[in-house]
Amino acid sequence: MAAMPTFADRLQQKIREHSPLCVGIDPSAALLKSCGLPDSAEGALEFGKRVLEAADFRIAVLKPQSAFFERFGSSGFRALETLVQLARAREVPVLLDGKRGDIDTTAAAYAEGYFSATTTLRVDAITTHCYLGLAALEPFFAAAIAADGGVFVVVRSSNPEGQALQTARMSNGETVAQSLCREITARNVRQRPDGIGPIGAVVGATCDDANETVAALPHSFVLAPGVGAQGATMRDVLARMPAGRGRVLPNVSRAILANGSRREEIKTTIASLQDQARALL
Amino acid sequence: MAAMPTFADRLQQKIREHSPLCVGIDPSAALLKSCGLPDSAEGALEFGKRVLEAADFRIAVLKPQSAFFERFGSSGFRALETLVQLARAREVPVLLDGKRGDIDTTAAAYAEGYFSATTTLRVDAITTHCYLGLAALEPFFAAAIAADGGVFVVVRSSNPEGQALQTARMSNGETVAQSLCREITARNVRQRPDGIGPIGAVVGATCDDANETVAALPHSFVLAPGVGAQGATMRDVLARMPAGRGRVLPNVSRAILANGSRREEIKTTIASLQDQARALL
Repeated sequence: MAAMPTFADRLQQKIREHSPLCVGIDPSAALLKSCGLPDSAEGALEFGKRVLEAADFRIAVLKPQSAFFERFGSSGFRALETLVQLARAREVPVLLDGKRGDIDTTAAAYAEGYFSATTTLRVDAITTHCYLGLAALEPFFAAAIAADGGVFVVVRSSNPEGQALQTARMSNGETVAQSLCREITARNVRQRPDGIGPIGAVVGATCDDANETVAALPHSFVLAPGVGAQGATMRDVLARMPAGRGRVLPNVSRAILANGSRREEIKTTIASLQDQARALL
Repeated sequence: MAAMPTFADRLQQKIREHSPLCVGIDPSAALLKSCGLPDSAEGALEFGKRVLEAADFRIAVLKPQSAFFERFGSSGFRALETLVQLARAREVPVLLDGKRGDIDTTAAAYAEGYFSATTTLRVDAITTHCYLGLAALEPFFAAAIAADGGVFVVVRSSNPEGQALQTARMSNGETVAQSLCREITARNVRQRPDGIGPIGAVVGATCDDANETVAALPHSFVLAPGVGAQGATMRDVLARMPAGRGRVLPNVSRAILANGSRREEIKTTIASLQDQARALL
């Protein structure tokens, strides 16, 4: 029996088919209004469905932002679950953006919720934060590897407020971000010496050290937020992170509505963004 | 019309009545099994109810750990919501431990989910992480203040893996933790010059710098995890954080089952832990 392909294998295949564009689902009140949808869990689910159907499920990775579903309490979380199930049933890889993180059995409980065989909210990958130390995330890594999934650790965020902490110096002289890159790469190499491993990273394309950060993560996929509505273009991303060619996933969220919110308009916009995103390969 | 009491006012009143003990609800598979409950969302809710009823709702603060509910997907999140509603209906303050964190509209979306007037999962306070910078959490602080709620920022975690990052030096010479303490205190003083403000902190009692960290947070409540099952006692907490007298909330989770899992046994254990916790006042 053939082994199940890893998350990285599946994602690479999808990227070849559909470009590395990561489609973000961020149903804010403003976004739902612009789509003529109710500001409710139902509206959020309907928005996600509209995007998936507009793209005919032909995208490399879908990134729902948990916060925009959690704002509706448990009915929002149920809408998130339904959307994730719909995407995965059509073989669209789902990267859940929840920036979870904790230690010990609590970290294992999160991992169970998103990677176990029994959970109803199984995803392909999840974002995490590492304020408690990268090693504290081991239960996430172990569960992701067991499930052929992935974990994306936030290394360098795109907002200016994050820089002071992320570039603080540890006692060995490395910055926090450099230390994370080294530790992530060591784990990826152990798992997959000759390719892309299970631990990806989130790196804002606008950070001063974006390219050196991506260069220090040679075995990782890199999610690059902030393309489109936040001003950066696909060419900006490539210019700022040339070391990431073939591994960078540019994320667009609000920008998928740049040409209108009807299904045909979203379809055209996503196709155009995917064309542009191929420049990153 | 009298102003709504702030989170800090309400918590201080509850502490006077019931001691500063924070009762954690961490329904792991092992814990549910030891209670004879099914390892399901229903079991998790039933455990939370059993604890609340055993204590006759007479506790200063209830801290459900989101991860142990998220492990059941959306049905777990629904169980969490029901538990939170039950506790708050009986005026038990709820501190949701989810360590959320993000930037901009995403941070605002989380804040909406837990503090808005319309959410079904309204809590009194929430834990956050600040890998993206404390200032990125402003939407949480603003929403908490508007709702007379609180935000507990993880400053120093109890696990050894967190130390290198949390004590890294920023360009101004401060450690990450010291910088957070200064920024949290400045915000609290602006909000409440003469008492405890809306921004609390999580500080592991076993950290080397626990007391100096707590001393640098004179306007904050401090959640101290790890009492009981992880080995520390109430007297250890006091000995390690004397600067926090009157402001430290010792958290017990597994230890509430130390004398058995039946309602009467839990009742006796919580009463005994509350007696011990009064030493922190």
